[in-house]
Amino acid sequence: MTRGRFITLEGGEGVGKSTNLQFIKQLLEERGIPFVLTREPGGTGIAEKIRGILLERQEESLTEQAELLLVFAARAQHIQQVILPALQQGQWVVCDRFTDATYAYQGGGRNMNLQTIAWLENTVQGSLRPDLTFVFDAPIEIGMQRAKHRGELDRFETEQLAFFERVRQAYLQRAATDLQRYKIIDASLPLHEVQRQLRSELAGL
Amino acid sequence: MTRGRFITLEGGEGVGKSTNLQFIKQLLEERGIPFVLTREPGGTGIAEKIRGILLERQEESLTEQAELLLVFAARAQHIQQVILPALQQGQWVVCDRFTDATYAYQGGGRNMNLQTIAWLENTVQGSLRPDLTFVFDAPIEIGMQRAKHRGELDRFETEQLAFFERVRQAYLQRAATDLQRYKIIDASLPLHEVQRQLRSELAGL
Repeated sequence: MTRGRFITLEGGEGVGKSTNLQFIKQLLEERGIPFVLTREPGGTGIAEKIRGILLERQEESLTEQAELLLVFAARAQHIQQVILPALQQGQWVVCDRFTDATYAYQGGGRNMNLQTIAWLENTVQGSLRPDLTFVFDAPIEIGMQRAKHRGELDRFETEQLAFFERVRQAYLQRAATDLQRYKIIDASLPLHEVQRQLRSELAGL
Repeated sequence: MTRGRFITLEGGEGVGKSTNLQFIKQLLEERGIPFVLTREPGGTGIAEKIRGILLERQEESLTEQAELLLVFAARAQHIQQVILPALQQGQWVVCDRFTDATYAYQGGGRNMNLQTIAWLENTVQGSLRPDLTFVFDAPIEIGMQRAKHRGELDRFETEQLAFFERVRQAYLQRAATDLQRYKIIDASLPLHEVQRQLRSELAGL
């Protein structure tokens, strides 16, 4: 059986990942491709509990190292229980955020050591990497306005503007290193134009 | 200010760690030494939530890697929020289980890669190591009988006998590498004899 394709959606706050995830779902259904839609952090019962700890705003501040290790703990669980079994059965996996988010948020945003992240990536993922990654990019101000309209902000969304600027730049820098795998999507374009690009890139797979 | 001493209690199930922790507490109080009693996994609000995920018995099985990363996430939080601040203020820290438990349970019990554990230990702890570690040792059957009498078993306590035998051997092997730091206490001796040994070792600090 052919291994399924692994597609990830990345980007900062309010860049329209959820809307476009639904659009990708529709495209795959039209083509009759079996798939799993999932997200990080989370994607399994246990990993969603870990997500709860990561996003919750609480009195005790979560240390950077604990945050990074929780992200990879949830990922290890998600990969073994959901992603690998689906890919091996020939299903496609479409995931809202994956390890590029760790490089962007913990690496770029928090200035954590990239070698530490890379060690964890190799240990937890082995050779597993997405086949295609959409990086939805928009000026920080646009995304933050959208995120605020969604209701109460989570622990990450309460960060300062400079943090999100570093996240954005980290995403763009990573994308620039491999334009085969990463497709930068200008999320400030009209939705129909964004979706035209998604359709065209997915046809390539 | 003199840095406090860092003392850990280790051992398998039902070896009397809790009883002896109370005894050590009493000794430190008698001497007027300021101290913090704590435990792993746990010791902070967030770390106790992680402990909940680690010990809970649930439908979804927790993968070995996720387990190991959760243990070190909780530890990172515990060290930064509780252990280091206390030691720096001159308080002693007495901790029910620490990284030796990871070498014993995940390394010995689950046969996980010891280099992976060592990498995480160095990354999360830097140079922090206990000054004194009591390893409470008893034949597996004795400990398991005691643990069963405490009520419902947690996720670790439901492992097979061979698992606990590997845990026990891993503790003893680690202790043998540094008899300055590790004190093996025969937990099958009468309590007053165990406590005589504890008193004598603590007087040495």
